[in-house]
Amino acid sequence: MTLPIAVLDQQKLTNNIRWMQQFADLSGVQLAPHGKTGMLPALFLQQIAAGAWGMTLATVPQALVAAAHGVKRILLANQLVGRAEMQQVATMQQQGIEFYCLLDSPENLTQLDNFFSSQGLTLKVLLEIGVAGGRSGVRSFDAALELAQQVKHSKALLLAGVEFYEGVIKAPDQSAAIRQFIQSCIGFSLELQQQQLFATPQILLSGAGSAFYDLVSEAFQAAALPDNFMKLIRPGCYLFFDLGIYQQAQQDLLKRSALACQVNGELHNALEVWAYVLSRPEPQLAIIGFGKRDMAFDAGLPKVSQHFRPDAEPAKNQSARIQPTQRQPKAADARMHISKIMDQHALLQLPPDCDLAVGDMLSFAGSHPCLTLDKWRYVAVLDEDYQVRRWYETFF
Amino acid sequence: MTLPIAVLDQQKLTNNIRWMQQFADLSGVQLAPHGKTGMLPALFLQQIAAGAWGMTLATVPQALVAAAHGVKRILLANQLVGRAEMQQVATMQQQGIEFYCLLDSPENLTQLDNFFSSQGLTLKVLLEIGVAGGRSGVRSFDAALELAQQVKHSKALLLAGVEFYEGVIKAPDQSAAIRQFIQSCIGFSLELQQQQLFATPQILLSGAGSAFYDLVSEAFQAAALPDNFMKLIRPGCYLFFDLGIYQQAQQDLLKRSALACQVNGELHNALEVWAYVLSRPEPQLAIIGFGKRDMAFDAGLPKVSQHFRPDAEPAKNQSARIQPTQRQPKAADARMHISKIMDQHALLQLPPDCDLAVGDMLSFAGSHPCLTLDKWRYVAVLDEDYQVRRWYETFF
Repeated sequence: MTLPIAVLDQQKLTNNIRWMQQFADLSGVQLAPHGKTGMLPALFLQQIAAGAWGMTLATVPQALVAAAHGVKRILLANQLVGRAEMQQVATMQQQGIEFYCLLDSPENLTQLDNFFSSQGLTLKVLLEIGVAGGRSGVRSFDAALELAQQVKHSKALLLAGVEFYEGVIKAPDQSAAIRQFIQSCIGFSLELQQQQLFATPQILLSGAGSAFYDLVSEAFQAAALPDNFMKLIRPGCYLFFDLGIYQQAQQDLLKRSALACQVNGELHNALEVWAYVLSRPEPQLAIIGFGKRDMAFDAGLPKVSQHFRPDAEPAKNQSARIQPTQRQPKAADARMHISKIMDQHALLQLPPDCDLAVGDMLSFAGSHPCLTLDKWRYVAVLDEDYQVRRWYETFF
Repeated sequence: MTLPIAVLDQQKLTNNIRWMQQFADLSGVQLAPHGKTGMLPALFLQQIAAGAWGMTLATVPQALVAAAHGVKRILLANQLVGRAEMQQVATMQQQGIEFYCLLDSPENLTQLDNFFSSQGLTLKVLLEIGVAGGRSGVRSFDAALELAQQVKHSKALLLAGVEFYEGVIKAPDQSAAIRQFIQSCIGFSLELQQQQLFATPQILLSGAGSAFYDLVSEAFQAAALPDNFMKLIRPGCYLFFDLGIYQQAQQDLLKRSALACQVNGELHNALEVWAYVLSRPEPQLAIIGFGKRDMAFDAGLPKVSQHFRPDAEPAKNQSARIQPTQRQPKAADARMHISKIMDQHALLQLPPDCDLAVGDMLSFAGSHPCLTLDKWRYVAVLDEDYQVRRWYETFF
């Protein structure tokens, strides 16, 4: 194999799938993992087999990939805009996919209503609630109520629930602000229910990215919601985890959430990128053969993880065969760190006495797996014995 | 078509190919465009048809792509490290590819010599000269001379020239520092020639990324180099250009280079990404359906370029047919700007009176095309009449 390659550890993936499903089960919420992170349908199916209700996706092409690989329930955590996109959703629905998307404007309502009514179809939408300065979502409950009433009077749209994304909330006491926002969304959902504005027997109430799913789940659990409410969380990055922003978010979460601490085990980083040492041109500098095109760099630089020195002459070296344990990667010298990342190279700072040679292999663990995985068309899958026997295909 | 899509303007690509080839011709240097930027073999062949000597690539898998699509001369502007990589280069050479790579360490020399001599093959290498604190490359001419002597005594390696990359030089007077560095590399090459350390009849002297190719070309032209020296520049981003760092670099270059000013016309940005307005949740905020996964964001945020409002009812609207000019995109309101980019969304700030609606299409021009193009497996190719009839496949 040529390097760099991205490598997923199947044992860790399986562990992470189990962990989050157990968290959801203990919290009494359903799980619709956000599939955009890796766009690896092989893993969508593992998540669903472990108990997930369905998958969340960010775009219609992503939703099509999930549907084509056997996912039956899809939440598009986004507005459905564009004629081609609407046509593809119509086709998916006709193929039996249970599909939901978000709605936050009367303009989009009219566009969707015109399209789906002209096709003699309906479309289930969740009313998206947003926050000032945040992303999409209606900014006031008055406007949201008005929009819900317009949905009720539309020809094709069925109001099926309420959605929010708490991850964009910034405040001095972020947890408190998020709790308050979730409470207000729950209250609003009950108001819609009381005004009989939902059009489906089951009502979806959905929030939660990868950083605050505990706050969402707790609030959902604590609220006295009618039985026909389905509470749905949508974390995504937990599947791969990282040694950066999501590790930090999870550490913060474990301090907040007694329930998360009850789940057996913990999340593990399952994604690394292996690359060669190309050059060691100065005593304290090595040039590594990977870069911005191979790993995320927007939320902290990659951290060196493992070190492996290939045999100079693998075909002839018998000693390597009789001492197989020596042929496993070892933990890399922790004094090394990436100081700069370029398109195809990374600069590694190291002490002069560091045992690192041109031709050595190093693995790196990152921060923000979404922007590492979208660099790869195939990722290697590592089994227990450090052998790669399978590749998972990504569909970006 | 669903959005977002990346769109290349073929007329502008053709213009940019012609511009740089004309610059190289006027400067008396050969052109080996860096293909890593777009990894679009369809364009490699257009560049070669326009007069380029061959292609520069950054990795062996990239070089394989070029070879597989008919490129005959390849400069790997990188060290050749790794057994699989060496095997692939050996295979390429056996298929008739003229291949060069860089060398900057005795360790790599031994690895390459062992491999290629065991296969009964030779390998042409360029000695890479680097700068302190830069990327790869030998840091002193004494060490470089010693390495050249080691190459001479190797079994399989043929010293075929000298290479440098001036783009990593930082100094208060950057142009002066770069000029001085190039001069020293030229002097060193002549020293190697005098000591008869080159092993090939033709000697390659190669420098230049996309920002300082004028300084390199000028210095090459001014030097009294023997006839067997081939002077080679390797700019890459000029092909797509941008409205960011490379536009700025070209403006600086045109101030420095009388010769560049003699070339007819100028470079034009040929790459845009089209996306939908998904939401306009606040009077001064619109949410756009593209993000970090669709465009570069490391060297300035994308700038809004064109605006198009699709017909509400395209099939029935006759007026659109009889007024075709109204159906072209128009320049977007210049008061709009991207303030933040997330994985799959961008936040667009705009004045409240801006005529922008949910469902409108906007195009964006970026900075740093390398990190936009590697997000796409296919890019749409725009002809004069704003029709997409072809797609180019990228090979990342």
